[in-house]
Amino acid sequence: MATKKSKSAKIKYTALVATSIDGRIAEGARSGTDWTSAEDWKYFQSVLSKSDAVIAGFNTYKVAEAGLKKRNTIVLTSKADKLKSQGSVIFLNPKKSNLKNFLQSKNYKNVAIVGGALVYNFCLENKIMDEIFVTIEPYIFTNGVPMFAGAKFKKHQFILVSAKKLNKKGTFLLRYKRKEMYGN
Amino acid sequence: MATKKSKSAKIKYTALVATSIDGRIAEGARSGTDWTSAEDWKYFQSVLSKSDAVIAGFNTYKVAEAGLKKRNTIVLTSKADKLKSQGSVIFLNPKKSNLKNFLQSKNYKNVAIVGGALVYNFCLENKIMDEIFVTIEPYIFTNGVPMFAGAKFKKHQFILVSAKKLNKKGTFLLRYKRKEMYGN
Repeated sequence: MATKKSKSAKIKYTALVATSIDGRIAEGARSGTDWTSAEDWKYFQSVLSKSDAVIAGFNTYKVAEAGLKKRNTIVLTSKADKLKSQGSVIFLNPKKSNLKNFLQSKNYKNVAIVGGALVYNFCLENKIMDEIFVTIEPYIFTNGVPMFAGAKFKKHQFILVSAKKLNKKGTFLLRYKRKEMYGN
Repeated sequence: MATKKSKSAKIKYTALVATSIDGRIAEGARSGTDWTSAEDWKYFQSVLSKSDAVIAGFNTYKVAEAGLKKRNTIVLTSKADKLKSQGSVIFLNPKKSNLKNFLQSKNYKNVAIVGGALVYNFCLENKIMDEIFVTIEPYIFTNGVPMFAGAKFKKHQFILVSAKKLNKKGTFLLRYKRKEMYGN
Protein backbone atom coordinates (compact mmCIF):
# COMPACT_ATOMS: atom_id res chain seq x y z
CA MET A 1 0.00 0.00 0.00
CA ALA A 2 2.81 2.41 0.90
CA THR A 3 4.54 1.69 -2.39
CA LYS A 4 1.35 2.20 -4.32
CA LYS A 5 0.74 5.53 -2.57
CA SER A 6 4.21 6.89 -3.21
CA LYS A 7 3.91 6.01 -6.89
CA SER A 8 0.72 7.96 -7.45
CA ALA A 9 1.17 11.64 -8.32
CA LYS A 10 -0.07 14.24 -5.88
CA ILE A 11 -3.55 15.47 -6.66
CA LYS A 12 -4.30 19.18 -6.40
CA TYR A 13 -7.70 19.83 -4.85
CA THR A 14 -9.35 23.18 -5.61
CA ALA A 15 -12.61 24.26 -4.01
CA LEU A 16 -14.69 26.70 -6.04
CA VAL A 17 -17.18 28.80 -4.09
CA ALA A 18 -19.61 31.55 -5.10
CA THR A 19 -20.82 33.44 -2.05
CA SER A 20 -22.66 36.51 -0.85
CA ILE A 21 -20.75 39.14 1.14
CA ASP A 22 -22.04 37.46 4.30
CA GLY A 23 -20.83 33.96 3.44
CA ARG A 24 -24.08 32.40 2.21
CA ILE A 25 -23.88 30.11 -0.80
CA ALA A 26 -27.58 29.47 -1.46
CA GLU A 27 -31.08 30.15 -0.18
CA GLY A 28 -31.73 26.46 0.48
CA ALA A 29 -30.18 23.05 -0.25
CA ARG A 30 -31.73 22.76 -3.72
CA SER A 31 -31.68 26.44 -4.75
CA GLY A 32 -30.06 27.54 -7.97
CA THR A 33 -27.40 30.19 -8.41
CA ASP A 34 -29.28 32.75 -10.49
CA TRP A 35 -27.65 35.49 -8.39
CA THR A 36 -24.11 34.71 -9.58
CA SER A 37 -22.64 36.83 -12.35
CA ALA A 38 -21.87 35.88 -15.95
CA GLU A 39 -18.21 36.63 -15.19
CA ASP A 40 -18.14 34.15 -12.30
CA TRP A 41 -19.84 31.53 -14.45
CA LYS A 42 -17.21 31.95 -17.16
CA TYR A 43 -14.41 31.70 -14.61
CA PHE A 44 -16.01 28.66 -12.96
CA GLN A 45 -16.31 26.87 -16.32
CA SER A 46 -12.70 27.67 -17.23
CA VAL A 47 -11.44 26.08 -13.99
CA LEU A 48 -13.69 23.04 -14.46
CA SER A 49 -12.42 22.57 -18.01
CA LYS A 50 -8.87 22.29 -16.63
CA SER A 51 -9.95 19.79 -13.95
CA ASP A 52 -9.86 16.05 -14.44
CA ALA A 53 -12.77 15.46 -12.09
CA VAL A 54 -15.34 17.26 -9.97
CA ILE A 55 -16.54 16.49 -6.44
CA ALA A 56 -20.11 17.53 -5.65
CA GLY A 57 -22.74 16.80 -3.02
CA PHE A 58 -26.01 15.17 -4.03
CA ASN A 59 -28.07 18.38 -3.87
CA THR A 60 -25.47 20.38 -5.79
CA TYR A 61 -25.33 17.61 -8.37
CA LYS A 62 -29.12 17.71 -8.77
CA VAL A 63 -29.08 21.50 -9.26
CA ALA A 64 -26.28 21.36 -11.84
CA GLU A 65 -26.90 17.88 -13.30
CA ALA A 66 -26.98 18.94 -16.97
CA GLY A 67 -23.41 20.24 -16.80
CA LEU A 68 -21.94 17.82 -14.27
CA LYS A 69 -23.12 14.60 -15.92
CA LYS A 70 -20.86 15.39 -18.88
CA ARG A 71 -17.81 15.47 -16.60
CA ASN A 72 -15.99 12.96 -14.38
CA THR A 73 -18.13 13.83 -11.41
CA ILE A 74 -17.92 12.13 -8.04
CA VAL A 75 -21.18 12.66 -6.18
CA LEU A 76 -20.80 12.27 -2.42
CA THR A 77 -23.93 10.74 -0.97
CA SER A 78 -24.92 8.79 2.09
CA LYS A 79 -27.50 6.93 -0.01
CA ALA A 80 -25.03 4.80 -1.99
CA ASP A 81 -23.90 1.61 -0.27
CA LYS A 82 -21.24 0.76 -2.82
CA LEU A 83 -19.72 2.76 -5.67
CA LYS A 84 -22.35 3.23 -8.35
CA SER A 85 -21.56 4.61 -11.77
CA GLN A 86 -23.87 6.25 -14.27
CA GLY A 87 -21.98 7.28 -17.39
CA SER A 88 -19.08 9.45 -16.24
CA VAL A 89 -20.72 10.07 -12.86
CA ILE A 90 -19.79 8.05 -9.76
CA PHE A 91 -21.93 7.99 -6.62
CA LEU A 92 -19.70 7.44 -3.61
CA ASN A 93 -20.50 7.20 0.07
CA PRO A 94 -17.44 8.62 1.86
CA LYS A 95 -18.31 6.60 4.98
CA LYS A 96 -18.08 3.35 3.00
CA SER A 97 -15.45 4.11 0.33
CA ASN A 98 -12.19 6.05 0.57
CA LEU A 99 -12.56 9.11 -1.66
CA LYS A 100 -8.84 9.88 -1.90
CA ASN A 101 -7.92 6.31 -2.80
CA PHE A 102 -10.59 6.30 -5.47
CA LEU A 103 -9.32 9.56 -7.02
CA GLN A 104 -5.72 8.33 -6.93
CA SER A 105 -6.69 5.06 -8.60
CA LYS A 106 -7.99 7.15 -11.51
CA ASN A 107 -4.71 9.07 -11.81
CA TYR A 108 -6.45 12.43 -11.63
CA LYS A 109 -4.17 15.43 -11.21
CA ASN A 110 -6.56 18.34 -10.75
CA VAL A 111 -9.82 17.87 -8.90
CA ALA A 112 -12.41 20.63 -8.39
CA ILE A 113 -14.79 20.73 -5.42
CA VAL A 114 -18.05 22.54 -6.16
CA GLY A 115 -19.98 22.19 -2.89
CA GLY A 116 -22.33 22.43 -1.12
CA ALA A 117 -21.58 23.26 2.51
CA LEU A 118 -21.31 19.64 3.72
CA VAL A 119 -18.95 18.70 0.91
CA TYR A 120 -16.73 21.76 1.42
CA ASN A 121 -16.62 20.84 5.08
CA PHE A 122 -15.87 17.18 4.49
CA CYS A 123 -13.02 18.07 2.11
CA LEU A 124 -11.53 20.69 4.43
CA GLU A 125 -11.63 18.36 7.44
CA ASN A 126 -10.10 15.50 5.46
CA LYS A 127 -7.27 17.48 3.86
CA ILE A 128 -8.86 17.38 0.44
CA MET A 129 -8.57 21.14 -0.10
CA ASP A 130 -5.25 22.65 -1.23
CA GLU A 131 -6.81 25.82 -2.58
CA ILE A 132 -10.09 27.67 -2.33
CA PHE A 133 -11.25 30.20 -4.92
CA VAL A 134 -13.99 32.41 -3.53
CA THR A 135 -16.12 34.62 -5.75
CA ILE A 136 -17.95 37.22 -3.69
CA GLU A 137 -21.07 38.58 -5.38
CA PRO A 138 -22.12 42.02 -4.06
CA TYR A 139 -25.19 40.92 -2.10
CA ILE A 140 -26.07 40.42 1.53
CA PHE A 141 -28.53 37.56 2.07
CA THR A 142 -28.79 37.61 5.91
CA ASN A 143 -29.89 33.95 5.85
CA GLY A 144 -29.47 30.80 3.75
CA VAL A 145 -26.90 28.03 3.48
CA PRO A 146 -23.53 28.96 5.07
CA MET A 147 -20.33 28.22 3.11
CA PHE A 148 -19.19 25.52 5.54
CA ALA A 149 -21.36 23.30 7.71
CA GLY A 150 -18.86 22.46 10.42
CA ALA A 151 -19.87 20.91 13.72
CA LYS A 152 -17.31 22.99 15.64
CA PHE A 153 -15.52 26.32 15.36
CA LYS A 154 -11.96 25.75 14.15
CA LYS A 155 -9.26 28.04 12.77
CA HIS A 156 -8.06 26.78 9.39
CA GLN A 157 -5.45 29.19 8.11
CA PHE A 158 -5.13 30.06 4.43
CA ILE A 159 -2.85 32.39 2.46
CA LEU A 160 -4.17 34.86 -0.08
CA VAL A 161 -2.66 34.15 -3.49
CA SER A 162 -4.47 36.65 -5.69
CA ALA A 163 -7.38 39.10 -5.75
CA LYS A 164 -9.27 40.31 -8.78
CA LYS A 165 -12.36 42.34 -9.62
CA LEU A 166 -14.36 40.40 -12.20
CA ASN A 167 -16.83 43.05 -13.38
CA LYS A 168 -18.08 46.60 -13.01
CA LYS A 169 -20.63 45.96 -10.26
CA GLY A 170 -17.89 44.52 -8.11
CA THR A 171 -17.96 40.74 -8.21
CA PHE A 172 -14.67 39.90 -6.54
CA LEU A 173 -12.47 36.81 -6.76
CA LEU A 174 -10.12 35.87 -3.90
CA ARG A 175 -7.82 32.87 -4.39
CA TYR A 176 -6.32 31.22 -1.31
CA LYS A 177 -4.07 28.27 -0.65
CA ARG A 178 -3.83 26.28 2.58
CA LYS A 179 -1.13 27.41 4.93
CA GLU A 180 -0.02 23.93 5.97
CA MET A 181 0.66 21.84 2.92
CA TYR A 182 -0.02 18.16 3.28
CA GLY A 183 0.85 15.08 1.27
CA ASN A 184 -1.90 12.82 0.04
CA MET B 1 -42.18 66.64 12.45
CA ALA B 2 -41.63 66.88 8.70
CA THR B 3 -39.97 70.28 9.14
CA LYS B 4 -37.77 68.96 11.89
CA LYS B 5 -36.71 65.98 9.75
CA SER B 6 -35.83 68.07 6.71
CA LYS B 7 -33.72 70.38 8.86
CA SER B 8 -31.54 67.61 10.24
CA ALA B 9 -28.53 66.67 8.14
CA LYS B 10 -28.36 63.23 6.64
CA ILE B 11 -26.42 60.75 8.74
CA LYS B 12 -24.02 58.39 7.03
CA TYR B 13 -24.15 54.90 8.56
CA THR B 14 -21.10 52.69 8.07
CA ALA B 15 -21.00 49.08 9.20
CA LEU B 16 -17.55 47.72 10.07
CA VAL B 17 -17.16 43.95 9.93
CA ALA B 18 -14.21 41.62 10.48
CA THR B 19 -14.96 38.17 9.13
CA SER B 20 -13.46 34.80 8.25
CA ILE B 21 -13.46 33.71 4.58
CA ASP B 22 -16.66 31.79 5.31
CA GLY B 23 -18.59 34.73 6.77
CA ARG B 24 -18.21 34.00 10.49
CA ILE B 25 -17.58 36.94 12.81
CA ALA B 26 -16.94 35.13 16.10
CA GLU B 27 -16.87 31.73 17.76
CA GLY B 28 -19.71 32.64 20.13
CA ALA B 29 -21.72 35.68 21.25
CA ARG B 30 -19.15 36.77 23.83
CA SER B 31 -15.95 35.68 22.06
CA GLY B 32 -13.14 38.14 21.45
CA THR B 33 -11.48 38.91 18.16
CA ASP B 34 -7.94 37.68 18.81
CA TRP B 35 -7.88 36.29 15.27
CA THR B 36 -8.11 39.71 13.60
CA SER B 37 -4.91 41.32 12.36
CA ALA B 38 -3.08 44.36 13.69
CA GLU B 39 -3.71 46.03 10.31
CA ASP B 40 -7.48 45.55 10.62
CA TRP B 41 -7.41 46.88 14.18
CA LYS B 42 -5.59 50.00 13.04
CA TYR B 43 -8.05 50.53 10.19
CA PHE B 44 -11.02 49.91 12.50
CA GLN B 45 -9.74 52.49 15.00
CA SER B 46 -9.11 55.06 12.26
CA VAL B 47 -12.72 54.78 11.06
CA LEU B 48 -14.06 54.96 14.63
CA SER B 49 -12.00 58.08 15.30
CA LYS B 50 -13.78 59.79 12.37
CA SER B 51 -17.20 58.68 13.60
CA ASP B 52 -19.40 60.79 15.89
CA ALA B 53 -21.00 57.74 17.44
CA VAL B 54 -20.92 53.95 17.47
CA ILE B 55 -23.81 51.47 17.47
CA ALA B 56 -23.12 48.12 19.16
CA GLY B 57 -25.10 45.20 20.49
CA PHE B 58 -24.93 44.34 24.18
CA ASN B 59 -22.56 41.37 23.77
CA THR B 60 -20.25 43.29 21.46
CA TYR B 61 -20.25 46.16 23.92
CA LYS B 62 -19.29 43.83 26.75
CA VAL B 63 -16.40 42.36 24.72
CA ALA B 64 -15.08 45.79 23.72
CA GLU B 65 -16.25 47.83 26.73
CA ALA B 66 -12.86 49.38 27.55
CA GLY B 67 -12.69 51.09 24.16
CA LEU B 68 -16.38 51.75 23.55
CA LYS B 69 -17.15 53.41 26.88
CA LYS B 70 -14.85 56.28 25.90
CA ARG B 71 -16.95 56.96 22.79
CA ASN B 72 -20.52 58.05 22.09
CA THR B 73 -21.74 54.49 22.02
CA ILE B 74 -25.36 53.48 21.59
CA VAL B 75 -25.82 49.97 22.95
CA LEU B 76 -28.86 48.24 21.49
CA THR B 77 -30.44 46.01 24.11
CA SER B 78 -33.80 44.48 24.77
CA LYS B 79 -33.14 44.82 28.49
CA ALA B 80 -33.52 48.62 28.71
CA ASP B 81 -37.07 49.87 29.08
CA LYS B 82 -36.23 53.53 28.62
CA LEU B 83 -33.07 55.27 27.42
CA LYS B 84 -30.39 54.83 30.07
CA SER B 85 -27.12 56.70 30.00
CA GLN B 86 -23.83 55.83 31.66
CA GLY B 87 -21.17 58.40 30.85
CA SER B 88 -21.02 58.70 27.06
CA VAL B 89 -22.79 55.35 26.63
CA ILE B 90 -26.54 55.12 25.95
CA PHE B 91 -28.51 51.90 26.36
CA LEU B 92 -31.42 51.91 23.94
CA ASN B 93 -34.13 49.35 23.27
CA PRO B 94 -34.96 49.71 19.57
CA LYS B 95 -38.42 48.28 20.18
CA LYS B 96 -39.21 51.07 22.64
CA SER B 97 -37.19 54.03 21.30
CA ASN B 98 -36.58 55.18 17.73
CA LEU B 99 -32.85 54.81 17.07
CA LYS B 100 -32.77 57.07 14.00
CA ASN B 101 -34.66 59.87 15.75
CA PHE B 102 -32.30 59.63 18.70
CA LEU B 103 -29.20 59.85 16.47
CA GLN B 104 -30.65 62.80 14.54
CA SER B 105 -31.48 64.63 17.76
CA LYS B 106 -27.77 64.47 18.58
CA ASN B 107 -26.79 65.96 15.19
CA TYR B 108 -24.39 63.12 14.46
CA LYS B 109 -23.07 62.99 10.90
CA ASN B 110 -21.05 59.77 10.78
CA VAL B 111 -22.18 56.74 12.72
CA ALA B 112 -20.29 53.43 12.80
CA ILE B 113 -21.99 50.07 13.37
CA VAL B 114 -19.72 47.47 14.96
CA GLY B 115 -22.05 44.46 15.31
CA GLY B 116 -22.77 41.73 16.24
CA ALA B 117 -24.96 39.76 13.86
CA LEU B 118 -28.30 40.92 15.30
CA VAL B 119 -27.26 44.58 15.19
CA TYR B 120 -25.96 44.35 11.63
CA ASN B 121 -29.23 42.72 10.70
CA PHE B 122 -31.38 45.28 12.50
CA CYS B 123 -29.52 48.14 10.81
CA LEU B 124 -29.68 46.58 7.34
CA GLU B 125 -33.41 45.85 7.64
CA ASN B 126 -34.13 49.36 8.93
CA LYS B 127 -32.09 51.24 6.33
CA ILE B 128 -29.42 52.21 8.83
CA MET B 129 -26.56 50.98 6.63
CA ASP B 130 -25.28 53.14 3.78
CA GLU B 131 -21.92 51.41 3.59
CA ILE B 132 -20.35 48.21 4.79
CA PHE B 133 -16.58 47.74 5.13
CA VAL B 134 -15.67 44.08 5.32
CA THR B 135 -12.23 42.90 6.42
CA ILE B 136 -11.68 39.27 5.46
CA GLU B 137 -9.06 37.54 7.58
CA PRO B 138 -7.54 34.47 5.87
CA TYR B 139 -9.20 31.79 7.98
CA ILE B 140 -12.03 29.34 7.55
CA PHE B 141 -13.94 28.70 10.79
CA THR B 142 -16.66 26.28 9.51
CA ASN B 143 -18.87 27.29 12.45
CA GLY B 144 -19.53 30.25 14.74
CA VAL B 145 -21.61 33.42 14.58
CA PRO B 146 -22.68 34.31 11.02
CA MET B 147 -22.27 37.93 9.86
CA PHE B 148 -26.01 38.55 9.67
CA ALA B 149 -28.73 36.88 11.72
CA GLY B 150 -31.66 37.38 9.37
CA ALA B 151 -34.92 35.51 9.75
CA LYS B 152 -35.34 35.16 6.00
CA PHE B 153 -33.18 34.96 2.88
CA LYS B 154 -33.28 38.31 1.08
CA LYS B 155 -31.17 39.86 -1.69
CA HIS B 156 -29.74 43.20 -0.55
CA GLN B 157 -27.62 44.56 -3.37
CA PHE B 158 -24.43 46.50 -2.72
CA ILE B 159 -21.79 48.08 -4.98
CA LEU B 160 -18.08 47.52 -4.49
CA VAL B 161 -16.34 50.85 -3.92
CA SER B 162 -12.78 49.73 -3.21
CA ALA B 163 -10.63 46.68 -2.50
CA LYS B 164 -7.32 46.60 -0.70
CA LYS B 165 -4.86 44.06 0.68
CA LEU B 166 -3.96 45.12 4.23
CA ASN B 167 -0.93 42.91 4.95
CA LYS B 168 1.36 40.21 3.64
CA LYS B 169 -0.64 37.21 4.84
CA GLY B 170 -3.62 38.48 2.86
CA THR B 171 -6.05 40.24 5.14
CA PHE B 172 -8.35 41.88 2.62
CA LEU B 173 -10.62 44.92 2.88
CA LEU B 174 -13.70 45.27 0.66
CA ARG B 175 -15.73 48.48 0.91
CA TYR B 176 -19.29 48.48 -0.39
CA LYS B 177 -22.11 50.99 -0.56
CA ARG B 178 -25.80 50.19 -0.79
CA LYS B 179 -27.18 50.12 -4.28
CA GLU B 180 -30.44 51.90 -3.45
CA MET B 181 -29.74 55.11 -1.62
CA TYR B 182 -32.34 56.17 0.90
CA GLY B 183 -33.09 59.33 2.81
CA ASN B 184 -33.29 59.25 6.57
